[in-house]
Amino acid sequence: MKIDYLIDNVNLVTFAQADKQGSLLGVGEDDYGSCTQAVVAIADDKIVFAGQLPGSTEDWLSSQGYDVKQRLDAGGQWLTPGLVDCHTHLVFGGNRAQEFEWRLRGESYEDIARKGGGIVSSVSHTRELSEEALLKQSEPRLLRLLEEGVTTVEIKSGYGLDTETELKMLRVARELGRRHAVTVKTTFLGAHAVPPEFKQRSHGQQCYIDYVCQDMLPEVARQELADAVDVFCEGIGFTPQQCEQVFQTAAKLGLPIKGHVEQLSDLKGAVLAAQYHALSVDHIEYLAEADVEKLQGTVAVLLPAAFYCLNEKQRPPIAALRQHNIPMAVATDLNPGTAPLASLLTAMNQVCILFGLTPAEALKGATLNGAKALGLKDVGGIQAGMAADLALWDIQHPAELAYGVNFYRPTQVWHQGRLRNSNMQEAI
Amino acid sequence: MKIDYLIDNVNLVTFAQADKQGSLLGVGEDDYGSCTQAVVAIADDKIVFAGQLPGSTEDWLSSQGYDVKQRLDAGGQWLTPGLVDCHTHLVFGGNRAQEFEWRLRGESYEDIARKGGGIVSSVSHTRELSEEALLKQSEPRLLRLLEEGVTTVEIKSGYGLDTETELKMLRVARELGRRHAVTVKTTFLGAHAVPPEFKQRSHGQQCYIDYVCQDMLPEVARQELADAVDVFCEGIGFTPQQCEQVFQTAAKLGLPIKGHVEQLSDLKGAVLAAQYHALSVDHIEYLAEADVEKLQGTVAVLLPAAFYCLNEKQRPPIAALRQHNIPMAVATDLNPGTAPLASLLTAMNQVCILFGLTPAEALKGATLNGAKALGLKDVGGIQAGMAADLALWDIQHPAELAYGVNFYRPTQVWHQGRLRNSNMQEAI
Ligand SMILES: [Zn+2]
Ligand SMILES: [Zn+2]
Repeated sequence: MKIDYLIDNVNLVTFAQADKQGSLLGVGEDDYGSCTQAVVAIADDKIVFAGQLPGSTEDWLSSQGYDVKQRLDAGGQWLTPGLVDCHTHLVFGGNRAQEFEWRLRGESYEDIARKGGGIVSSVSHTRELSEEALLKQSEPRLLRLLEEGVTTVEIKSGYGLDTETELKMLRVARELGRRHAVTVKTTFLGAHAVPPEFKQRSHGQQCYIDYVCQDMLPEVARQELADAVDVFCEGIGFTPQQCEQVFQTAAKLGLPIKGHVEQLSDLKGAVLAAQYHALSVDHIEYLAEADVEKLQGTVAVLLPAAFYCLNEKQRPPIAALRQHNIPMAVATDLNPGTAPLASLLTAMNQVCILFGLTPAEALKGATLNGAKALGLKDVGGIQAGMAADLALWDIQHPAELAYGVNFYRPTQVWHQGRLRNSNMQEAI
Repeated sequence: MKIDYLIDNVNLVTFAQADKQGSLLGVGEDDYGSCTQAVVAIADDKIVFAGQLPGSTEDWLSSQGYDVKQRLDAGGQWLTPGLVDCHTHLVFGGNRAQEFEWRLRGESYEDIARKGGGIVSSVSHTRELSEEALLKQSEPRLLRLLEEGVTTVEIKSGYGLDTETELKMLRVARELGRRHAVTVKTTFLGAHAVPPEFKQRSHGQQCYIDYVCQDMLPEVARQELADAVDVFCEGIGFTPQQCEQVFQTAAKLGLPIKGHVEQLSDLKGAVLAAQYHALSVDHIEYLAEADVEKLQGTVAVLLPAAFYCLNEKQRPPIAALRQHNIPMAVATDLNPGTAPLASLLTAMNQVCILFGLTPAEALKGATLNGAKALGLKDVGGIQAGMAADLALWDIQHPAELAYGVNFYRPTQVWHQGRLRNSNMQEAI
């Protein structure tokens, strides 16, 4: 059998469980499923072996009849799953730096709105850009994520708020995935805000949701541009009833759903989303502890950057999430208004500092549980059969990744079995 | 006259004042001292011209008889002063990620201390490393700062706590400045903590301060390894009386002083330091408003990363600092315990989000006022006669630099008139 890459003398963060180890020898009982002095073999886009060997690598290779094309001595570095940023809005036009400045100079929300600030600013910039210009503005933000070892990223629409621009955003997201060594999952978020042209109408909010369900979403589905459908369930977004209308439409079209829920108030959006088998419920700072047990089957996506940027005080019910074994993911929420942050490692640090997660929970949230929040079952862990999305780090302990802000970059990244960097030879 | 670099078609953040413009034409009245569609000329390590031209660049060049070696059309990008990180502890051995993990897993401070956590961990790692190994461990953190446009960095000792290791740290700091295109200013911080071997003695704290003043500091001064002297004035550090002893010793040796003061409590360390003509008073979350007026002549260095990492609630008296025109600087405080953060741009974002500074105040704090906190009078602004330490950014507005986290990297950096990147040709 052909092995494309054999990574030797490496420590692994597998996120596999010791009791389910199967072929994975030597996995520890710690929160990382760590496995030291191990070997990983990659063939095509998959991991075909990961774990400790009983004897020498040479004996094992010859006994298995493996033909190794490239071999890397990792020198005791740590290999983790490639990072998964499962919640971003990284495709948008313009930025909101001036509005950030106006706010800090003490200008009122009314004055800022009058000057054209707020989400309408991002909508108008996103609408007016050509598809290529929108891609060019969005690409540097994606590259910042990739530099830190991200191999899967979710990208939402939601700054178009008309069919044409929503489709354009989703096409740009897909195109970014074709141009770069990263898996892009797209999410349609037509129900993000009411666009200005509907705001002026009576019942504009409901009219817009009807437009989302009758026009935009069917067209997005027909063109197969979205992997999931999202809503913003909030006083300043849409009502639970309107969100349910979107969920029902998505279900009819065969698309999985997610929700921006309980970010600023408790409208029971998370429980509603869970009833519609949501892939994830995102933000959830105001989720009631008593509702946590109703979230079985979904993933809680924690977004500390928005909490940080908005100077929020209410934290998600972490203890209850742990108690009920609801998987917790962490993502950047990268967006121009409430989270202009292009660093998943920084979000991992924030989720520890601000929400009290452990570094192991943060890393699992940015790998295995992030993948779960996107419905990806074979991504985010290191085990035979899983995707060969991997990041190698020159660190002594995996807790370092959540501890240091802008300290670390991966020394090597594999996406779907292909080495992303070109400095492989130097590292051998 | 020979011009090494002529940067044309550029927008400037000068931090010069419109009423003091001198040769600087066209500077605006905004907080950035911005000057659009300008030209900057660099000769050797200095800016020799900055501002708008009355006519064409060609006419001006020939009328002045300038011989331009390299010319760069900046295409409307923004040029700022190179960033100044005026407070770091970036030279240290090991890291404290495991301790971070233990704390987040709920282990008590006593248990963590028993396992060897805390500053003693950094001290023992720093002591045991060879000089070259200490440099190799510290260098990646410096490189992270440089990538973001830092051209001047202060580096403190303080993880040696014995003469030999303090000298080693300061030599490593100086060597980093020789190996990389950055100005390094070193600060002796022997009075950082009481080392374990003194803790066991009776009056160990006072004995250690006597050792600092009688042995370490004179030797540091003799070898000319420090540009300034710092102390940690705090309940868990040293008393104001002990700090004053250090200040007096520094004064006798002709070294300027600074202080870690009022971080966790109000011991009146800032006022004391100001009486000794401190270059800066750093942290100052617990500084009393009534004491702010006593800080004339010094610089208030704000360190939001430690505030963030420690989940502190008490903010520095920003309104009073503004009212009394005390210059405010911002720095990373990059250290292994309370601020493992190697990003001055992120600290600029934090000082806006957490302390309410404006983006212009943050940028001035990380350039002109950071330089002031190091006693550097010709660094941190863009005017004829100032150091040619410059960073060029592909942004629409200078507020973007504090707004986006990990969004931006400079497209070009000059340190002392030399282009740091090698991609000049491409950008022309
Ligand atoms: Zn979002
Ligand atoms: Zn410090």
